[in-house]
Amino acid sequence: MAGNTFGEVFRVTTWGESHGPGLGAVIDGCPPRLSLTAQDIEMELARRRPGIQAHASPRREPDKVEILSGVFEGRTTGTPISLIIYNRDVRSRDYESLREVFRPGHGDITFLAKYGLRDHRGGGRASARETAARVAAGAVALKVLDREGVQVLAYTQELGGVRAARVDESGIWDNPFFCPDPDAVAAMAVRVQEVKAAGDSLGGIVEVRVRGCPAGLGEPVFHKLDAVLAQAVMSVGAVKGVEIGAGFAAARMTGSEHNDPILPGPRFASNHAGGILAGISNGDEIVVRAAVKPIPSISREQQTIDLEGRPRTLVIKGRHDVSAIPRIVPVIQAMVRLTLADFLLRQKAIK
Amino acid sequence: MAGNTFGEVFRVTTWGESHGPGLGAVIDGCPPRLSLTAQDIEMELARRRPGIQAHASPRREPDKVEILSGVFEGRTTGTPISLIIYNRDVRSRDYESLREVFRPGHGDITFLAKYGLRDHRGGGRASARETAARVAAGAVALKVLDREGVQVLAYTQELGGVRAARVDESGIWDNPFFCPDPDAVAAMAVRVQEVKAAGDSLGGIVEVRVRGCPAGLGEPVFHKLDAVLAQAVMSVGAVKGVEIGAGFAAARMTGSEHNDPILPGPRFASNHAGGILAGISNGDEIVVRAAVKPIPSISREQQTIDLEGRPRTLVIKGRHDVSAIPRIVPVIQAMVRLTLADFLLRQKAIK
Amino acid sequence: MAGNTFGEVFRVTTWGESHGPGLGAVIDGCPPRLSLTAQDIEMELARRRPGIQAHASPRREPDKVEILSGVFEGRTTGTPISLIIYNRDVRSRDYESLREVFRPGHGDITFLAKYGLRDHRGGGRASARETAARVAAGAVALKVLDREGVQVLAYTQELGGVRAARVDESGIWDNPFFCPDPDAVAAMAVRVQEVKAAGDSLGGIVEVRVRGCPAGLGEPVFHKLDAVLAQAVMSVGAVKGVEIGAGFAAARMTGSEHNDPILPGPRFASNHAGGILAGISNGDEIVVRAAVKPIPSISREQQTIDLEGRPRTLVIKGRHDVSAIPRIVPVIQAMVRLTLADFLLRQKAIK
Amino acid sequence: MAGNTFGEVFRVTTWGESHGPGLGAVIDGCPPRLSLTAQDIEMELARRRPGIQAHASPRREPDKVEILSGVFEGRTTGTPISLIIYNRDVRSRDYESLREVFRPGHGDITFLAKYGLRDHRGGGRASARETAARVAAGAVALKVLDREGVQVLAYTQELGGVRAARVDESGIWDNPFFCPDPDAVAAMAVRVQEVKAAGDSLGGIVEVRVRGCPAGLGEPVFHKLDAVLAQAVMSVGAVKGVEIGAGFAAARMTGSEHNDPILPGPRFASNHAGGILAGISNGDEIVVRAAVKPIPSISREQQTIDLEGRPRTLVIKGRHDVSAIPRIVPVIQAMVRLTLADFLLRQKAIK
Repeated sequence: MAGNTFGEVFRVTTWGESHGPGLGAVIDGCPPRLSLTAQDIEMELARRRPGIQAHASPRREPDKVEILSGVFEGRTTGTPISLIIYNRDVRSRDYESLREVFRPGHGDITFLAKYGLRDHRGGGRASARETAARVAAGAVALKVLDREGVQVLAYTQELGGVRAARVDESGIWDNPFFCPDPDAVAAMAVRVQEVKAAGDSLGGIVEVRVRGCPAGLGEPVFHKLDAVLAQAVMSVGAVKGVEIGAGFAAARMTGSEHNDPILPGPRFASNHAGGILAGISNGDEIVVRAAVKPIPSISREQQTIDLEGRPRTLVIKGRHDVSAIPRIVPVIQAMVRLTLADFLLRQKAIK
Repeated sequence: MAGNTFGEVFRVTTWGESHGPGLGAVIDGCPPRLSLTAQDIEMELARRRPGIQAHASPRREPDKVEILSGVFEGRTTGTPISLIIYNRDVRSRDYESLREVFRPGHGDITFLAKYGLRDHRGGGRASARETAARVAAGAVALKVLDREGVQVLAYTQELGGVRAARVDESGIWDNPFFCPDPDAVAAMAVRVQEVKAAGDSLGGIVEVRVRGCPAGLGEPVFHKLDAVLAQAVMSVGAVKGVEIGAGFAAARMTGSEHNDPILPGPRFASNHAGGILAGISNGDEIVVRAAVKPIPSISREQQTIDLEGRPRTLVIKGRHDVSAIPRIVPVIQAMVRLTLADFLLRQKAIK
Repeated sequence: MAGNTFGEVFRVTTWGESHGPGLGAVIDGCPPRLSLTAQDIEMELARRRPGIQAHASPRREPDKVEILSGVFEGRTTGTPISLIIYNRDVRSRDYESLREVFRPGHGDITFLAKYGLRDHRGGGRASARETAARVAAGAVALKVLDREGVQVLAYTQELGGVRAARVDESGIWDNPFFCPDPDAVAAMAVRVQEVKAAGDSLGGIVEVRVRGCPAGLGEPVFHKLDAVLAQAVMSVGAVKGVEIGAGFAAARMTGSEHNDPILPGPRFASNHAGGILAGISNGDEIVVRAAVKPIPSISREQQTIDLEGRPRTLVIKGRHDVSAIPRIVPVIQAMVRLTLADFLLRQKAIK
Repeated sequence: MAGNTFGEVFRVTTWGESHGPGLGAVIDGCPPRLSLTAQDIEMELARRRPGIQAHASPRREPDKVEILSGVFEGRTTGTPISLIIYNRDVRSRDYESLREVFRPGHGDITFLAKYGLRDHRGGGRASARETAARVAAGAVALKVLDREGVQVLAYTQELGGVRAARVDESGIWDNPFFCPDPDAVAAMAVRVQEVKAAGDSLGGIVEVRVRGCPAGLGEPVFHKLDAVLAQAVMSVGAVKGVEIGAGFAAARMTGSEHNDPILPGPRFASNHAGGILAGISNGDEIVVRAAVKPIPSISREQQTIDLEGRPRTLVIKGRHDVSAIPRIVPVIQAMVRLTLADFLLRQKAIK
């Protein structure tokens, strides 16, 4: 029930399964007269591609996008923008063995419980491949943000327990983990090798910073900016927690520690609020953090049941990543972009 | 823009300011023929009342509710249920000194940035008093949950750094902190006294457990059950983080540690997932946790600016609590109830 | 399911039954800083009051409104505006005889079929009294329209077969039928007397004209301006048809007759389109017409059934009007205002 | 703003322009486990194809559909169903002459006013070609209706002033006008020839009947069944009026004439209500009528202006139909199907 649509003014509807003909997004409510090309979108899709593969033969999707509507002579027209990304490197046979069995940590068992049937091939709609459509739509949102001078930057703050100690923005996209601390990259690589050897997988933390966001965005009380950001980020598969600013650390602070003093400008002497007060942006940097669980597809033997409810042991074969990081970084970035583009336009409506 | 409505089928719209005539909620989409009385609602409101006051003269609201529509001869009719809670103990003069100045950590500055004016009396719409309408609506949602056999239980897991070591459900509502661990109550009381003496405030963590929830609730991909729970809980003022199941701890686990083995039943050998897989309930207990920041109203001197942007020092007077806990506990419980009632009904629609 | 909410940005939720404590509306998304008083609203409600009574003791509702939220120091704040109109002149005993029987032409039988129970007192939610909340909300929409220079005028074009031959706007509100043709008023009065004597009732046609509406409003393809106007007007009880511009007459015209030639300006040499082309306003006057069925409450004996399905004859007693006209005129006007206020704000969002 | 989405539970989003790569629909909220093939959809599309051409070389679209998602092994999965219909017979050069000029009666001038640019090729999004996506989606809605035993039948009641005197359902799809009265077909053909020779175009009236609809559908007060049907039908290009049951004729009836006596069953002695009372279906046949304006593309010289606002005379060349009838018949049928499928599912949610 409308579960596949996000946003109120800048509204994205996505569709597509891992092993169907393709995936796509329809964006309704994009302002007219913004320049938009397939290349703009493919550039973002390219960042979602390189996984940390556990096996030698990874799925390779060139992730070409076709713009089917809503753009005329290189500019958006205000009508729905339909994007399609074809699935090309589909090997459904790899999944035939999974038709009868539920993978632990996956949506196999819940999709069946919900719908009474499921597309078992590669997780169907529950596959991480679904997020390609989010990233494509996020590339359109980026056009709105660019016009308004808002920047969204996401990166890996922690991977397998290895934490980035500092944020050097310039090198984020140049290392395999989208990590902003060059010194942490080597330790991450070691941790990944260990876990890969053990047939296991890793989680981590992704941080997002938004700059240039004007004060005033967010719609109290249920569509507060932080509330919708939480929905947006938690809706990404593998995310198990979301925090804003000081987040869970705020729970152990006192008010005098946590309150951000207000200085002329206005600006703030600290940013424990993470740029949001009472659900509305305050003009400071917005800071969002997401906890990413380890990928549930592991090579180690696991205990599960089959369709008849009988106990089974399972060893997952086929290609899969060691961690949702770094591929999830541009996905989370896209969700934050979609949220902000929507709120920027919503704010215009009440003027 | 629709910011004050929550839910798709069981849809709640709230209204009201701290110092206006009252607050209320309109519930559209409540199933007909459920028994409902004002007393049912007032019982829930009573749990939201007792704050840990920093001063001698707390605001006292009897929180009587009037059902203005949608109930006939004691049963819901299927038409909108309008609830009103009058504000009685309003002392707007206490706030006159705040007309010209922004309180750090409050929505004063962002409401003004957004709307170009604000009701400065007691925070207006940004007041915690707003949550009374949520709790009232949650009491109606409870009727739907009762019918379907779903129970939602919230409690204080941590206050001012003091953590409940165990969960004894029977005593939760009997201690001033809604804490499930009788042994932690004394330590919490000491911590509160310290901080009260220092004119400061405290944060904490609230945990919610949902039992009896059928497998199959949640609408991938943007209205996943965990995504909407995150929105619901994060929309409560003072909440800065939300996590499901293992939450942020999942970021440091491996897949073999985190995956919950599936046993015949089906049931799960562990519950790191927190009852939700791929955004859909799996039939296990749903576990949600919220980080609550310390209350920003403190008696200590703070640095801020006035309406003209000039630096000011501020000492907040008037009644206020030391922590949003425990009053926030029934509020978060209500938001989880509203979410589940909505998803229970949404699931019927696709059958 | 959200059936009691109208609008996307300027969003109105109404509630209330004929014989409950009152009726009301919550308006979410009203721009801030508009002046608004209870008197502004009561002025509009006053126009909805005078019915053409069939009996000596009409229901008299002073229709005082109370603004419960969203207005501070005489101006809207951007937060939800909650309006309540108390029911005072309620005589539920008049309806006790209707508890067991279905009135033909009324919603008695369908509300029971839908909800499995019904509030039989005065039609409950299906009562024309419900429309008071629409008119109240329409008075708030008027503030948005005034700011943007848009005027909406509704009047009786036809009553009981007597048609207004011309439109003299100055006198519309000064005659008991809200008829724009002073010469038709006398004939309408004669027709009303005849039908009143016969214990019967009358229908008619209401026309609405919108001036000053900028070109560009409307959201193809499902939220075209004419489509949402049709929903808005058809949602008023007693309306059985809606047409735009030439309407049903267009079905018998040729393209060369119907097309409105475009002149420099741009303006149009004729207005068969009724101010809307391809679902978007063209800057010309918008013309909407509604067919109003005769009021189903008549004094003549009618054939029906009771709750057990047994045949019954029914003679309706108690106060009721001879026609929904003229009370329905300000209601339809309000619905058109609500629609336009919403589309004016929606258009801002895509800029 | 969400203008391209229709429905609340069974939710359709359409996209596509006349001369882009294709058109499509995404259906979210379709129940799982319904059988669905491309052939099911193409059968409906075939009925939308044959226009009454004014010229020798009509546009020929085979209207093959591809199901891109949401169907697995021949059955719907509950995830979004994405449909695409490629545009193949596109001759954009025909429209090059229209880049600088506004066609009277078309959306050229209003799309430009709204968006500040427009796709002039074949009307872009305002083209009747857009309705192919509606018909495709309607074929999916049909699966829901079939399951629930609801039938929707549309036909031409009047064309160019020639009226069908009776309804013989068996022959509707066998004559070029989708007319249910074989005797009227010849007269319609004559009228079409006359008007074609004159380079002009015709309007008409389409009637829809719904059988087997259970009592209880419709969501008062703004989403009454008749209100949403009015929106649905008026959203189809060329429709200028919608009526239910007696419709505009009701305006001249008395209550004793119009009220439908209720008989044991329950059933109704007449059906002036058109199957809907107080916005809720009453179990009787639902009757909807739409006024269709003459097609604005005519060969006769017309007065208009160009992009610079200078007066111009225009003679439209290229292929176009003499009337929106009969192609509009399956489109209106599809819109009624989409509406009913949605309300059938909405009703389940409140149970």
